[in-house]
Amino acid sequence: MTNTDEPILLESRDARGVVTLTLNRPAAFNALSVALIDALHAACERLALDAELRAVVIAANGRAFCAGHDLREMQTPPSQPAYQALFDRCGAMMLALHRLPVPVIARVHGLATAAGCQLVALCDLAVAADSASFATSGINVGLFCATPSVTLSRNLPRKKAFELLVTGDFIDARTALAQGLVNRVVPDPALDDEVEALVASIVAKPRIALEMGKALFYRQLETGLEAALHDAARTMACNMADATAQEGVQAFIEKRAPSWRP
Amino acid sequence: MTNTDEPILLESRDARGVVTLTLNRPAAFNALSVALIDALHAACERLALDAELRAVVIAANGRAFCAGHDLREMQTPPSQPAYQALFDRCGAMMLALHRLPVPVIARVHGLATAAGCQLVALCDLAVAADSASFATSGINVGLFCATPSVTLSRNLPRKKAFELLVTGDFIDARTALAQGLVNRVVPDPALDDEVEALVASIVAKPRIALEMGKALFYRQLETGLEAALHDAARTMACNMADATAQEGVQAFIEKRAPSWRP
Amino acid sequence: MTNTDEPILLESRDARGVVTLTLNRPAAFNALSVALIDALHAACERLALDAELRAVVIAANGRAFCAGHDLREMQTPPSQPAYQALFDRCGAMMLALHRLPVPVIARVHGLATAAGCQLVALCDLAVAADSASFATSGINVGLFCATPSVTLSRNLPRKKAFELLVTGDFIDARTALAQGLVNRVVPDPALDDEVEALVASIVAKPRIALEMGKALFYRQLETGLEAALHDAARTMACNMADATAQEGVQAFIEKRAPSWRP
Repeated sequence: MTNTDEPILLESRDARGVVTLTLNRPAAFNALSVALIDALHAACERLALDAELRAVVIAANGRAFCAGHDLREMQTPPSQPAYQALFDRCGAMMLALHRLPVPVIARVHGLATAAGCQLVALCDLAVAADSASFATSGINVGLFCATPSVTLSRNLPRKKAFELLVTGDFIDARTALAQGLVNRVVPDPALDDEVEALVASIVAKPRIALEMGKALFYRQLETGLEAALHDAARTMACNMADATAQEGVQAFIEKRAPSWRP
Repeated sequence: MTNTDEPILLESRDARGVVTLTLNRPAAFNALSVALIDALHAACERLALDAELRAVVIAANGRAFCAGHDLREMQTPPSQPAYQALFDRCGAMMLALHRLPVPVIARVHGLATAAGCQLVALCDLAVAADSASFATSGINVGLFCATPSVTLSRNLPRKKAFELLVTGDFIDARTALAQGLVNRVVPDPALDDEVEALVASIVAKPRIALEMGKALFYRQLETGLEAALHDAARTMACNMADATAQEGVQAFIEKRAPSWRP
Repeated sequence: MTNTDEPILLESRDARGVVTLTLNRPAAFNALSVALIDALHAACERLALDAELRAVVIAANGRAFCAGHDLREMQTPPSQPAYQALFDRCGAMMLALHRLPVPVIARVHGLATAAGCQLVALCDLAVAADSASFATSGINVGLFCATPSVTLSRNLPRKKAFELLVTGDFIDARTALAQGLVNRVVPDPALDDEVEALVASIVAKPRIALEMGKALFYRQLETGLEAALHDAARTMACNMADATAQEGVQAFIEKRAPSWRP
């Protein structure tokens, strides 16, 4: 597990087009070193062009999911421009992950702290094991988890998010579920099965509909209600005119399975 | 119940000015045909001008609340402009319903799917029977529920909304309550009483205050905090200068019921 | 407790820089008279300049937390400009409280209604006793709680907030917790200890990180995701370049407590 010859990011792909990216710095609790940020960003840029991609799972090796930035890389000499370059680099990776044309699912076990917690919040969906715990713990070393606050505050009720950010306290998986940070929680041995259940549901649908839908979902959240409804009507008309929806509707009416099903 | 001579939208009005619009295509699970969309829109435009209106209840006949768009009307030949016209038409109806000057309450039993789920999310308030279930199931036929996503994502936590949209899975009434999609859940036989409890609370208040308040509520949600507080201060001053609030405050101080109470 | 010689707003400060502002109009259920609004505003303006300030607690004397505006001051003759001046004055106080450079915690027991409920929603954090109850009850006298709706709708799910605003119904402390209006609920005798636990956690962190973080938290909520991530990266770089974070990270790596800890 700590074999230093292994790459820091593992990538596997199944026959359906489901890619699993596994953070592989277990000895460092999968901290997001610059090298790991870059590896994730490069993978996202490559996957964004992959027309056969159906879903992405973010997983992690070792006892932790991800402990955030690699503090050892942030030591002296202090340089605000260098820090900003680092956080911008991480933000660009997060945006690339967010914009993947397929659903992205976090598979979380063990601790997910700071930028690791941000990663969970940023994913479209998250499945957690009972062992998972979450914190925006930067404040414990005097560094407010600013970039994590962006996605955290878009997942949790406002006062709950603020509390986590200023106390640095941990919440367990069940609390994360109740507060909206994750979609499902299962015992650790059932984690892969639960992720697979979600993946199976997704790959049973046509990619084009999910791609249009995911982009619309986040786009319309940033506009007012009327503009959002117009945008959604355009998106839906475009989706409906596509051959897959045509077949899907026809199959529904004829009470048969659509031919695009795997 | 399947008498074809009956109108597809029933309208009843009580002495208090409470209007119930009942979807009446039970054999088609109250699917929103173009004719039904137009009937709802026409009713909204008429009711918007009705100074005596106090509340609107959206109900449904038959086993389902509403199964969304009428897929039979969306069959070949495919035409993106025709689809966009359809979804725009539905969106305009939804906006007209949303902008009614009185609270709109969904009375939900049985299934509410796709645009039927959107209808529930769009209403200001919703009371569900235990039999109610909700899904944005368009994705099962390859059509992402784009317009439903607009109101769903403004009612539910983000990850929960996304999950429903990409899986097409159903949630039951209790889950809908926990996630913010409905206000109250009761056993089916108690549904009318619970809706009436909400209606009775509303009609006991002056319409002018509810009208100003409802418009402000949604308007300020689309601005920043400071602009929202200014808008609210203007609204509240306008409300307070009205005779009904004058009487209400005076009655409160004199420890008596206000004379505008029914 | 009803000694009229006492000031309407009490202020105490401990050695750590934690200031408690106590509403002290117990006989009037701490209604926000113009004098009390002005006293709160003046305190906020003074505290905003206090570099040693670490946290602010809003508490209240008597049986209620705060019953909202003082309706006796809103009696005839009705004047819309005068009402607007009053609500603007209150809004300006609320904004000043919101913008304090340290976390603001509501310590809530008894009833918190109308602008009293707004005050709880506006605070960054809130701890409630079991005795606490909350309502936006203006609608009962014909006055929609417009300014309370601004913060309420940013704390609670949309339909829950709308329901409270149009019914005027009370919710108890446990419901307020479930809906996101408060962070923690404890039995009344444990209220001070629970507030202190939160305060102790906050003062253990450097003020500069909390100050940058709080401002960023609310600022980024009013922008889109990409702009928010950029803003957060800038904030985090600035925070990281500061001496306290440098020491915090160094201490973390050396597995010792940071020297800025009290």
